Amino acid sequence: MTSNQTEIQQRRGDIAARLEELKADALLISSSANVRYLSGFSGSNGFVVLTATETHFFTDPRYDIEARTNISAKVHVVKGSITPKILEVAKRKKLKRIGFESSWTRFDEYTRMKDGLPLGFSLVPVGRIIEERRMLKSANEIEQIRRSVLLNSEAFARSLKRIRPGVRELDVAGEIEFQMKKLGAEKPAFETIIAAGAHSALPHAHPTGHKLSANELLLIDMGASLGGYCSDMTRVIHLGAPPKKLRELYNAVLEAQLAGVNAVRAGITAGRVDQVVRSVMKKHKLDKAFVHSTGHGLGLEIHETPRLGRMDQTILQAGMAITIEPGAYIDGWAGIRIEDTVLVTTNGCEVLTPTSKEFVTL
Amino acid sequence: MTSNQTEIQQRRGDIAARLEELKADALLISSSANVRYLSGFSGSNGFVVLTATETHFFTDPRYDIEARTNISAKVHVVKGSITPKILEVAKRKKLKRIGFESSWTRFDEYTRMKDGLPLGFSLVPVGRIIEERRMLKSANEIEQIRRSVLLNSEAFARSLKRIRPGVRELDVAGEIEFQMKKLGAEKPAFETIIAAGAHSALPHAHPTGHKLSANELLLIDMGASLGGYCSDMTRVIHLGAPPKKLRELYNAVLEAQLAGVNAVRAGITAGRVDQVVRSVMKKHKLDKAFVHSTGHGLGLEIHETPRLGRMDQTILQAGMAITIEPGAYIDGWAGIRIEDTVLVTTNGCEVLTPTSKEFVTL
Repeated sequence: MTSNQTEIQQRRGDIAARLEELKADALLISSSANVRYLSGFSGSNGFVVLTATETHFFTDPRYDIEARTNISAKVHVVKGSITPKILEVAKRKKLKRIGFESSWTRFDEYTRMKDGLPLGFSLVPVGRIIEERRMLKSANEIEQIRRSVLLNSEAFARSLKRIRPGVRELDVAGEIEFQMKKLGAEKPAFETIIAAGAHSALPHAHPTGHKLSANELLLIDMGASLGGYCSDMTRVIHLGAPPKKLRELYNAVLEAQLAGVNAVRAGITAGRVDQVVRSVMKKHKLDKAFVHSTGHGLGLEIHETPRLGRMDQTILQAGMAITIEPGAYIDGWAGIRIEDTVLVTTNGCEVLTPTSKEFVTL
Repeated sequence: MTSNQTEIQQRRGDIAARLEELKADALLISSSANVRYLSGFSGSNGFVVLTATETHFFTDPRYDIEARTNISAKVHVVKGSITPKILEVAKRKKLKRIGFESSWTRFDEYTRMKDGLPLGFSLVPVGRIIEERRMLKSANEIEQIRRSVLLNSEAFARSLKRIRPGVRELDVAGEIEFQMKKLGAEKPAFETIIAAGAHSALPHAHPTGHKLSANELLLIDMGASLGGYCSDMTRVIHLGAPPKKLRELYNAVLEAQLAGVNAVRAGITAGRVDQVVRSVMKKHKLDKAFVHSTGHGLGLEIHETPRLGRMDQTILQAGMAITIEPGAYIDGWAGIRIEDTVLVTTNGCEVLTPTSKEFVTL
């Protein structure tokens, strides 16, 4: 059994130990990241049923070989709809109270399952209990995230060489994603954001056919997925020397970002980090220009809990991986965002992203 | 108003005309493809509320500028949770019966909304009515899909030049996605599948660091997203002359694929096309090796209805865009899949994919 298998067994044990408290005889896991977390399966159609003593895994015939080779569980390969097979196993094993991921399950799926239940069986909504456990990363997971972050920064460094006037936003995105793949990433963790000039004032701009010109700002928000684990980084560069006002805007956002990184430590709330960042933005009269939250957890998914927003009362703990990414967006002119992936530690945090936060001039 | 805006108005009109039959005063649309279909919005957090006479659009401040500039609707930009704002508008407008996308909405979202409803208001599950309309593509949409398919084939052709022994599966995936971007695609429509040798027997293999060797099979399943519309193609190539048995396997799958294409026409069921393909596979004793369905609709999403599986009773209609993609997977040896994107016409179909289906030898 590989160390990853050992870890999967531990996770299952921890979750199974909570069944009684959840008033459930089994948990049905259907969200793909949670299925991966509890089985190692990375395909698109897998279900895990966890009881106090057993793990069942369900998939379709496309994944037959993968499942039987790699998944340590009772594997059921089902042609057609999988739900009836799950209910059949539940019935056979007398799993009367079936916990389900209510934050993930579609209303129609819920209804179909409910209508298919034998008499005396019930569905128990369990919310996001697996996501909660996933907030705390193991040493292995931290290592994976670290590698993903380093790969992402290396892809950025290699791509910088190709950025010059005349190159299109789309070319930059293509180059970055190509470099990620070359370096061994499975895929980008999200659609790479490449936004030049005033386009950068849209926090989630899609890359376009716009050609970079001399003296233009370029915002790059990129992340890789490596071994299933995500990285996330934003940098802003400038073709030619940036004008003074832009440099001031950059420095204000950088000050907020550094203050955020400095505030992170085990024991304070996610919301508190957001407040610290927001107060620096306010000092620079940029609070209204900062239109999103300060950051988010990441791991098997690019957006995980906690969310570092005003209201988030989650207490940060050592072993959480989060982003710190304030931004200021001025319609028609420019957007600046600076983002690192950081690891919460007992006394503070470790900034995993090695890329310099100087305002790079190309 | 651009022609796209005219089309969006038509779609809204058609859906709004069904409100009475659905026993709803309004429809709340939350799935991103459906939101895009009814508003043009391509961001990640948008909601449409459609009444008999009005369209409301809800998003968060990140998309403020985009929404106010591009969306023809009453735009609400909401900080924090959007649901309460939607309910507020529903209350103000006396939209007592709120239709919701029950095939898409999560159980917890449903519960939150239900708990927030004013007295006398109710939620009405409406299933997949927008997906049903989306099956039939307009002339504009067909043109978009055609362009996406052509771009995808061109990216394939350009990437072929780089495929040779020593190149890794990941390099091939990176090259293909880079070429897509260069040609103007926003992104791959799905994670590009690159599977060499026995790896090709996994129908949904992820590209790995495996280096191609001489005399190896390579399966490439790729699609682009262009203007929001997807393409999908699978081809199998061989480094060096393929052995006779592999050529026989290829020819059998090709025969099934051509039979499938030949069977497609308006008026027959999706399931019938699957049967035709499956019977050719059976003739070659490959029915057990054909572990998935024959194809699927595509458009704003890579997988749309209909699904060309055994049970699908959907009657094909002119204007549907679908894939025809039989495959045979022999564990430990090889997998062959051949896939085109085709357009259903009154008398048959038009194969949109221009790439040759010869067994290409590099």
